[in-house]
Amino acid sequence: MSQGGDPSRIEVLAPAECLELLKYNSFVGRVGFVVESGRPMVLPVNYLFDKESIVFCTAPGTKLSHLSHGEPVAFEVDASRSLYNSGWSVLVRGTAREVTDARELELLRRGPLRSWGVSPSEHWIRISIDEISGRRIPET
Amino acid sequence: MSQGGDPSRIEVLAPAECLELLKYNSFVGRVGFVVESGRPMVLPVNYLFDKESIVFCTAPGTKLSHLSHGEPVAFEVDASRSLYNSGWSVLVRGTAREVTDARELELLRRGPLRSWGVSPSEHWIRISIDEISGRRIPET
Repeated sequence: MSQGGDPSRIEVLAPAECLELLKYNSFVGRVGFVVESGRPMVLPVNYLFDKESIVFCTAPGTKLSHLSHGEPVAFEVDASRSLYNSGWSVLVRGTAREVTDARELELLRRGPLRSWGVSPSEHWIRISIDEISGRRIPET
Repeated sequence: MSQGGDPSRIEVLAPAECLELLKYNSFVGRVGFVVESGRPMVLPVNYLFDKESIVFCTAPGTKLSHLSHGEPVAFEVDASRSLYNSGWSVLVRGTAREVTDARELELLRRGPLRSWGVSPSEHWIRISIDEISGRRIPET
């Protein structure tokens, strides 16, 4: 899997299909962001597709919890079937902001997302979907 | 999954265990890097753990192919069992350089890594493992 290789193997997905995959086909996504000295970081999160954006929760003091003031982020989900050398991936680019509205927080805390590692009472971060793109490598 | 949450759920993996997971338990990893204007990017690749570093191949002209002059990168692999709310992830931080030595390229092209999307005759990029860390969320 590598976006932008042999055009005979890699198919470009339409935005609507990318959104469907983001909504229904993955429990874990990876947040890419930039930390001190301009270095990149990638961390996995459990996420929810909510109101045309992505939300996840994180504990105070973690690197992810600092994503709250409109930082640029990348968000990636993928799935693969290694026996068939096939898979798909979706990439979102957007900005991250902490959810601070009390009513919205209440809804999120009562909602369906249960992070496997973080209590739902912690920080909630929302990622806007400014750009979305995806690729599929079909089965051989 | 979120690194740094409830300590009662998240276990920190030892570096040796992280290296084992990187070597034997994943076909697809995600490369995090920084592009124009300091924005983060995350793309999936098929990879090989080779001589204490990570190698992957990419086609000319792609965003990944520009990672060749010691750029800082993050490299993430993970696996999850959603039924059990469990999973693990390993994060490497290092720098990326294109493999240019002819003998080394020949070995890589004849070697076991077959990218699902890119011909093995393309660019090969090696990521040093400067830091490695990992987390596991055990089955509930």
